[in-house]
Amino acid sequence: MSEAGYTVAVLGATGAVGNRIIEQLEQSTVPVKALKLLASEKSVGKTLSFNGESVAVELAEPDAFEGVDIVLASAGGSVSAELAPEAVKRGAVVVDNSSHWRMDERVPLVVPEVNPDALKQHRGIIANPNCSTTQMVVALQPIKEQFGLKQIIVSTYQAASGAGQKAIDEVLDQAQAFIDGQREAMQANVLPVKGDEKHFPLAFNLLPQIDVFEEAGYTHEEYKMIDETKKIMLGDAHAKDIKVTGTAVRVPVMIGHGESVYFEVADHSATRSDIQQAFANGAGVTLQDDPDRQLYPQPLNAEGSRETFVGRVRPDLENEGAFHAWIVSDNLLKGAAWNTVEIAEQLVKDDLVRVPEGVNWD
Amino acid sequence: MSEAGYTVAVLGATGAVGNRIIEQLEQSTVPVKALKLLASEKSVGKTLSFNGESVAVELAEPDAFEGVDIVLASAGGSVSAELAPEAVKRGAVVVDNSSHWRMDERVPLVVPEVNPDALKQHRGIIANPNCSTTQMVVALQPIKEQFGLKQIIVSTYQAASGAGQKAIDEVLDQAQAFIDGQREAMQANVLPVKGDEKHFPLAFNLLPQIDVFEEAGYTHEEYKMIDETKKIMLGDAHAKDIKVTGTAVRVPVMIGHGESVYFEVADHSATRSDIQQAFANGAGVTLQDDPDRQLYPQPLNAEGSRETFVGRVRPDLENEGAFHAWIVSDNLLKGAAWNTVEIAEQLVKDDLVRVPEGVNWD
Repeated sequence: MSEAGYTVAVLGATGAVGNRIIEQLEQSTVPVKALKLLASEKSVGKTLSFNGESVAVELAEPDAFEGVDIVLASAGGSVSAELAPEAVKRGAVVVDNSSHWRMDERVPLVVPEVNPDALKQHRGIIANPNCSTTQMVVALQPIKEQFGLKQIIVSTYQAASGAGQKAIDEVLDQAQAFIDGQREAMQANVLPVKGDEKHFPLAFNLLPQIDVFEEAGYTHEEYKMIDETKKIMLGDAHAKDIKVTGTAVRVPVMIGHGESVYFEVADHSATRSDIQQAFANGAGVTLQDDPDRQLYPQPLNAEGSRETFVGRVRPDLENEGAFHAWIVSDNLLKGAAWNTVEIAEQLVKDDLVRVPEGVNWD
Repeated sequence: MSEAGYTVAVLGATGAVGNRIIEQLEQSTVPVKALKLLASEKSVGKTLSFNGESVAVELAEPDAFEGVDIVLASAGGSVSAELAPEAVKRGAVVVDNSSHWRMDERVPLVVPEVNPDALKQHRGIIANPNCSTTQMVVALQPIKEQFGLKQIIVSTYQAASGAGQKAIDEVLDQAQAFIDGQREAMQANVLPVKGDEKHFPLAFNLLPQIDVFEEAGYTHEEYKMIDETKKIMLGDAHAKDIKVTGTAVRVPVMIGHGESVYFEVADHSATRSDIQQAFANGAGVTLQDDPDRQLYPQPLNAEGSRETFVGRVRPDLENEGAFHAWIVSDNLLKGAAWNTVEIAEQLVKDDLVRVPEGVNWD
């Protein structure tokens, strides 16, 4: 760890995303003077490695944030609701991966490739978007900049890891039972939604429910994709400048979300090749699009990468100015851990690692 | 078998769809006087059961069609190209499940719930549509009839069985290797397309390629969905009355295709409840749509059923007259075997089991 630098706390350090935040932080440009790993009671005393040094996990409680400059949080909504204000009160800037603060108008919701300037108004709490939103806005930002975006219709193919390690474990167990011809032994206790009433097997199946149902037959995940995309791309979750809609489906994949996206641009002179070029030049985007070589994004290939992969770029054959693309990214990295750490990099770069005076979250 | 009735031949009797054609025929209203099972050299001599009787498999050759009234064919495009005209020459009416004849303007492409009247013009060969097309048009036909259809944008989630038993087998093997932590042992020799150059694992992965690539970056499967939908719903593969577009993706499911469909209707007074009611009343459609009870279509539940299941019905929140739905059906039944047998039922019912005079396919 560097002498000059920041004291960084990882809140929820022992989870799948927390682990990856630590890894991404090791490889980041954030100068880390000291690292604190915070988690709930049951993980206290465990040790994790950071840059070859062993770091003990401490209890996540308000006083743990004393002397901390940056908190990278991935401990769930209720923990963030309680502890983020406590951290800010003690002078730390919190980058939160839960959904709790995302729609709060005082909280910037940031994808550094898209809206880094939103950080300038931060009041100590910054929200990291939902995984399925992040990869979509990273991919479509260069399209918006060059050709103008009018409409997005997305169907998602989301990996089990979005629901945590327990979801991964149960799908692997279900898959083994299915392969063994023991379908009746396929147990489901987590998916589609831990807290909902019914649970269904995802192995060799499709579950068109991610998060709970809300108004008009939409799930919370679908509203997240609509509202967060607008807040990030337009600065307002209710803006009308881009129409956004979609369907969120859980698929039996462990890591890596797929998205089939139909989008309409304002500039109808845009050709397929123009759109491909824009994707290829996009920050954080890797174009994988060559039908002749059967090159297109696949979750198994995207795992472990910070990039958002785009392929299957095609003009719509009947709607002028409309195109299709297939977007894949590691939902635990760009969809969570890496975007969180990247926001911290941006805060450091823009000299924004400080809580403005007079901020009060009580 | 009944004394009065038809001599039916099943061509490609030993395949996954052929087997299911025999099962569906047992449960159908087609009076079967005699059954012939036809397949390639390597299956000759095998016996299969039909209504409790043992039937020997014979060689699929032109003279095998002597005395046959109805041929139900699922033996691939090249076999159908050669043998369908031979069968017609000998007086048999052929219902073909391959893609070979579908776009031929002389050949009706039929889904009995949608365009049964197209059978009246048949010249001995009738084509059964592609699996992903069939379930979509069955679901959307009642919407078209009651509210008028303007546009369809579909993203598919297609099962491995669409590529045959070898695809199923390789995905199960890949899944076992993945569960055992032996990812490098995941072998792929069939998917995404048997005849294409590269093969990729589908287990715990997504492959956005079904069939080979054609113009403008679209796959043949995507063109099938566009052209076949128009031919079935509008009577012309190039009609412009309904815009149809989509993206076809293979998912690690064994049986049962899912489809996320966005559609626009002409009658903007249609409410969510109107659309749900239309689906519920649709022939061959079962509405499974109750968010409060977490009821929605799932492939594991659809397997073995002739029905097309529809759920997740929602109005689009920004596009007037637009809706979303999630459609699932057993791709080997309504998508193949059952639709083939159902066409035969319709031919019998409408007294159309005869080849018109003067027909010549040479």
